[in-house]
Amino acid sequence: MFAQIQEAAQRLRGHAHITPLMTSRTLDQRVGAAVFLKCENFQRTGSFKFRGAFNAISRLSPAQKTRGVVTFSSGNHAQAVALTGRLLGIAATVVMPVDAPAIKRAATEAYGATVIAYDPGRDDREEIAHRLEVAQGCTLIPPFDHPDVIAGQGTAALELLQALERLDMLLVPCGGGGLLSGSAIAAKGIHPACRVVGIEPALADDATRSFHSGRLHTVHNPPTIADGTRTPSLGRLTFPLVREHVDDMRTVSEDAIMAAVRFLFFRMKLVVEPSGALGAAALLSGAVKPRGRTGVLLSGGNIDAATMVRILQSEGEKDATCAKQEGP
Amino acid sequence: MFAQIQEAAQRLRGHAHITPLMTSRTLDQRVGAAVFLKCENFQRTGSFKFRGAFNAISRLSPAQKTRGVVTFSSGNHAQAVALTGRLLGIAATVVMPVDAPAIKRAATEAYGATVIAYDPGRDDREEIAHRLEVAQGCTLIPPFDHPDVIAGQGTAALELLQALERLDMLLVPCGGGGLLSGSAIAAKGIHPACRVVGIEPALADDATRSFHSGRLHTVHNPPTIADGTRTPSLGRLTFPLVREHVDDMRTVSEDAIMAAVRFLFFRMKLVVEPSGALGAAALLSGAVKPRGRTGVLLSGGNIDAATMVRILQSEGEKDATCAKQEGP
Repeated sequence: MFAQIQEAAQRLRGHAHITPLMTSRTLDQRVGAAVFLKCENFQRTGSFKFRGAFNAISRLSPAQKTRGVVTFSSGNHAQAVALTGRLLGIAATVVMPVDAPAIKRAATEAYGATVIAYDPGRDDREEIAHRLEVAQGCTLIPPFDHPDVIAGQGTAALELLQALERLDMLLVPCGGGGLLSGSAIAAKGIHPACRVVGIEPALADDATRSFHSGRLHTVHNPPTIADGTRTPSLGRLTFPLVREHVDDMRTVSEDAIMAAVRFLFFRMKLVVEPSGALGAAALLSGAVKPRGRTGVLLSGGNIDAATMVRILQSEGEKDATCAKQEGP
Repeated sequence: MFAQIQEAAQRLRGHAHITPLMTSRTLDQRVGAAVFLKCENFQRTGSFKFRGAFNAISRLSPAQKTRGVVTFSSGNHAQAVALTGRLLGIAATVVMPVDAPAIKRAATEAYGATVIAYDPGRDDREEIAHRLEVAQGCTLIPPFDHPDVIAGQGTAALELLQALERLDMLLVPCGGGGLLSGSAIAAKGIHPACRVVGIEPALADDATRSFHSGRLHTVHNPPTIADGTRTPSLGRLTFPLVREHVDDMRTVSEDAIMAAVRFLFFRMKLVVEPSGALGAAALLSGAVKPRGRTGVLLSGGNIDAATMVRILQSEGEKDATCAKQEGP
C-alpha cells in the first residue's frame, strides 16, 4: 500500500498543492515539543479530499472517464470530486441532501458538477448513487472506503515526512478513516518508529471504540461541531487498516475543538475548520502528550460564517488575545 | 535609503520570519493578473511592525539599550516594541490609552513591557512619552516617522521582490506611511519599473489627499474599521518619501475592506486584519487595475473576535461560499 501512496504522489504532481508546513513558538512552548502543522486547509478545494478524489478519478479507464463519476457527500469530498471532474473533463454527479446548505450546493455546482438532491429522511444516498451507477454506467467515487482514495489521502503525510528529517509522532483527524489509514501507512513507510495517533471528537468516538474493541462501532448523526467526522463508522477497508497501522486513538471535547480553532485563528492566523483542528485540539487540551518532533495534519479550512461566529463568540477570556503572541 | 533597507534585512536575519508568498487561482482569474500575497500576518507579533521595531532598537548604543525604550501605541507597534525588548533584554515602556482593549494591554504586558495608561481626553501621549525620555533617559521608538523604522518596514517588500523574478506593481496599505515609503524604496531599488500604489480607507484619506495636493492633510479619529490606518497624517519623514517614491495613492470603501477580509478568510484560509487587507480590497473592488505580476502586502492579522464577527455577519450572499473555491 505504501507503493500506491508513492504512485499517487507522482499522479498528483502539478495538480495538487504541496501544502506548506507552519510552526509556532507559542505552540511549541505550550505543549513542550517541536510541532509541525501540515496545512491542508491551503489545499485545492480547501481540504485534503482533493488528493484522494483526484488520484481515484485519474486512474479510471478512458471508457470509465467518458461515462462520468458519481459520489454522495455534502462536504469536502463533493467539492473535491467536482473540481477533479472539471480539471479532467469528466462529468461529475453529486448526491446531496435536499437540506444541505445552499452555499455548499452552489460551490459544488460552480465547479460544474450536477447535484441530485435527496430527502435524507426518506431516501438512502448510497442507493441513489448505486442506481446512477447502473443506469448511467458511471463510476462511484466513495468518500473514503476505496484503495485509490486512501492512497491519495496518504500523500499529505508523505510530503510531511519527506520534508522533515525525522518525525516522532503524527496526529491525524479521523472520520471515515481514509486520511488516518493513508497517513499511517505513509508515515510508517518512511519512519517505522513514528507513532501515529488518530483523533476523534468524543461525541463521535465510533472509530476509537472500534479500534480498542476490535469490533466495528457506529455512531449515527453525532452532534459534534466537527462535521467532517460525522460518518457513522470506519469502512470495510479502513477499519482493518486503522487497526493494523495506527498506534492509538484519542478523543477530544467540543470545547477543546473550539479552543483549537480559536488558537489557530488568533495565534497562527490560520482558518481551520473544526474537523481540521482535531490534532491541534488533542495537543492543546493535553489529550495527547506529544513526543519530540510532532506532526499535526490540519485537514481542511472550509468553515461557514455561522460556525465561525459561534466559535468566536464562545471564546473564553483566557485565549482571547488578538495578537500573534508568543509565549513568555 | 535602499542600502539601509538591505542592512536592515541583514540585521533581521534569524529574528524576523521570512514570510511566505501565497497565490490564488480564483484571485488571479477574478482580477486578471498574477497576484502574489506577501503574508506579514504570519510575521512575529502578527504584523510587519516587528521589522521596524527590531531594526530600530537593535541599532541603539549599549548605553541606550541599558536605559530602555518607550513608545506610544495601542496596536501592532506596541507589541513589536514589547517583543523586541524581551528578545534583546531591553526594558520597554508602552504609553497606551486607559480605554485600550484589555486584551491588547494584556498582550503587551505578557511580552514583559511596562504599560503606562493615559486619559486620551486629557493627556497627550507624545508628551508623556517625551517626559519619560527626559526623566529616565530612555529612547523613543516612534511607530513610523523614524529612518530605522522605515528601513525595517521596507524589508518585507525587499523579500517579495527578491523572491520573484519580476514585479510590475506593488500595493501597500498606508497609515503613517512607514510601510509604504519603505516598500516603495525597496521595490524601486530592485525593479525601478515596478509601480507602487498606496491604499487607504476612503474614510481616512489624509495621505491620498496629501499625496495629490503636496500639502499635509490630516484626518482625526477616522471611523474606519481599518484601525491600523487611524493615524492622523503622514509624518515629517514619511510625507516627502511617499511623494518621491510612490507612484499613486487610491482609496477603498469600508464595504470593500470587509469583502476583502472575507475573501481572504473563505477562499484563502488566511486571517488578515482590515488594515492588512487594503491592497486586496483595492484589487477585488476594482479601485486599482492590476498590471502583470502584482504584489500585495498583507500587512497584519491581528483582528479581535468582535471585529471578525461583525465582518462575517455583514457578509453579502454573493461571497458567502465556505469552500476554498476556484473560479470557473
